[in-house]
Amino acid sequence: MSRTVGQVRADVEEAARWLAGRVVRTPVLRSPVIDDLAGARVLLKAENLQDGGSYKMRGALRAVGRLAAAGHTGVIAQSTGNHAVAVALAARQHGLAATVVLPVDAAPTKVDRARAAGARVVLAGTGVEERVAVANGLSDESGHPVVDAYDHPDVIAGQGTASLELIEEAERLGTPLDVLVVPVGGGGGVAGACLAAAGTGIEVYGVEPAGCDSLARSLAAGERVPVTPAPTIADGLRPSCVGELPFAIVRDALGGVVRVDDDEIGAAFRLILMELKVLAEPSGAAGLAGALRLGAEAARQRTVGVVLTGGNVEAALVARLMVQRPAEAATVEGVAA
Amino acid sequence: MSRTVGQVRADVEEAARWLAGRVVRTPVLRSPVIDDLAGARVLLKAENLQDGGSYKMRGALRAVGRLAAAGHTGVIAQSTGNHAVAVALAARQHGLAATVVLPVDAAPTKVDRARAAGARVVLAGTGVEERVAVANGLSDESGHPVVDAYDHPDVIAGQGTASLELIEEAERLGTPLDVLVVPVGGGGGVAGACLAAAGTGIEVYGVEPAGCDSLARSLAAGERVPVTPAPTIADGLRPSCVGELPFAIVRDALGGVVRVDDDEIGAAFRLILMELKVLAEPSGAAGLAGALRLGAEAARQRTVGVVLTGGNVEAALVARLMVQRPAEAATVEGVAA
Repeated sequence: MSRTVGQVRADVEEAARWLAGRVVRTPVLRSPVIDDLAGARVLLKAENLQDGGSYKMRGALRAVGRLAAAGHTGVIAQSTGNHAVAVALAARQHGLAATVVLPVDAAPTKVDRARAAGARVVLAGTGVEERVAVANGLSDESGHPVVDAYDHPDVIAGQGTASLELIEEAERLGTPLDVLVVPVGGGGGVAGACLAAAGTGIEVYGVEPAGCDSLARSLAAGERVPVTPAPTIADGLRPSCVGELPFAIVRDALGGVVRVDDDEIGAAFRLILMELKVLAEPSGAAGLAGALRLGAEAARQRTVGVVLTGGNVEAALVARLMVQRPAEAATVEGVAA
Repeated sequence: MSRTVGQVRADVEEAARWLAGRVVRTPVLRSPVIDDLAGARVLLKAENLQDGGSYKMRGALRAVGRLAAAGHTGVIAQSTGNHAVAVALAARQHGLAATVVLPVDAAPTKVDRARAAGARVVLAGTGVEERVAVANGLSDESGHPVVDAYDHPDVIAGQGTASLELIEEAERLGTPLDVLVVPVGGGGGVAGACLAAAGTGIEVYGVEPAGCDSLARSLAAGERVPVTPAPTIADGLRPSCVGELPFAIVRDALGGVVRVDDDEIGAAFRLILMELKVLAEPSGAAGLAGALRLGAEAARQRTVGVVLTGGNVEAALVARLMVQRPAEAATVEGVAA
């Protein structure tokens, strides 16, 4: 746990000052239909409009920027997609070489985007262990450091700046947050959110897909518990275990974890598209799915912030998710009318 | 032509000052993939993220605000959708009663939204003449004025504020616009764009769907020429004739009109969704379709602004448009890689 010493709100604030002007200050979106469904005032931070299409750009830029300042000439990253694309873009911005390790079944869009950003793409296996082994091997060969997708203090602080901006914007609007909801993969984003919310009284909730609930199980057990991730459309939320550093940060700071299923994620995806007019990836939509489930229980009449973490999704999946079920359409129309 | 006297850039600037804080200052979005396809730097003003889901909110709020200040207690509007929804929302904001006349085949979403905003909805026929007759009858009965969707100086000035903000933002980014592209229905938006660009040297282009090209024909003829609108997915761009006041403003100010077909509009819709992560309605996507066509001819190496006018579209149409054609997918990947 010694690694957590010093990871405090000030780290996120410092990252935010450094990132100002280097990343998009994304808008905060609202919809009366979503407020009605949630029974709360819901503010969504549209990080799908971030450079690279996800909030991963924040952590990647912060971490790569520090490595560049320290004299490194290249970086290595592994992920299922968004973090690798973000590191590739961040490396190009700082003039560093980037090698990214993606699974052989990676979304073609993400492979294309990493290559378009000038990265060397290495495809390796389908599981995180294989990718980590390949990334470490490449690091040993080249001497270039690996930028972990979530178990890294600069990545956590960078991701936390999305939450910090949302907290600040809610205050500016005169509706300070009571609750902040963030999807959980390896836990970097939710750890950053806990740091950003520290001392504010805001309750932070994580959202995990059913069967990909390493964080929920870890919190219950008091120690990190790996899972065999179940299938889910939220491909970014399927690490087998929450990261060590994120877990150390969130274990005493988190209000709780909400589990959501693919139907709830799909419904949130459609609401975000049709009501807010922006495209979320399922992993990004999971935050709203969690807020809607939470709304039924705890969030009534309060202000709930949701980090809409990204928007990189395949066209075919969009088409599939838009085949709306009649029951759901009726519900939404009922609320809208 | 006497109605045009006095409609100048200052009217748009005054509307912008009045609307500041009353409408969303929508973000300006960019994508390297779109820049590559256009052969130009393309800045898109995301008015799909405007209140009410379209830039029609600007003109409606400006016009209804002035009527409220003049003591009116209610307003009437007719349109195929977005203007009616915008007038309903604007009336509620000013505490006025609103009656909106929509076609019997109006998109259910738009009917729902007008009702949700508290308006009385009257369904009348399928053509603009029937709706105008009903709206005028309701106005005679009630004494409430009709807010025309485009043939109205306050509506034109209000719509022009979207272009004005885009022009200002491009300057702030250090990439002032060379070209400004706006979709054309009744011509209110493009007239507002011409006013906003007056004296700046920016060339303004209108975009019309093939077979709905009343403005192009009117410019060629030197007088307003009605058409029998051809079928198009861009349902907001199908008035039978460009408005009198818009035509008087644009006839000597417009750089030209670009005609686009439904395939080009569909491709632009997908680019906007997949690359910019926002949902455009086909009428809104038409602006980018026009810019891409223009890019091949005139816009190379320049900065092109596009007003992405709205995002109110049915879920079923989104699903249909996302069934991407393989040839197009190959092209986009080729550019991205």
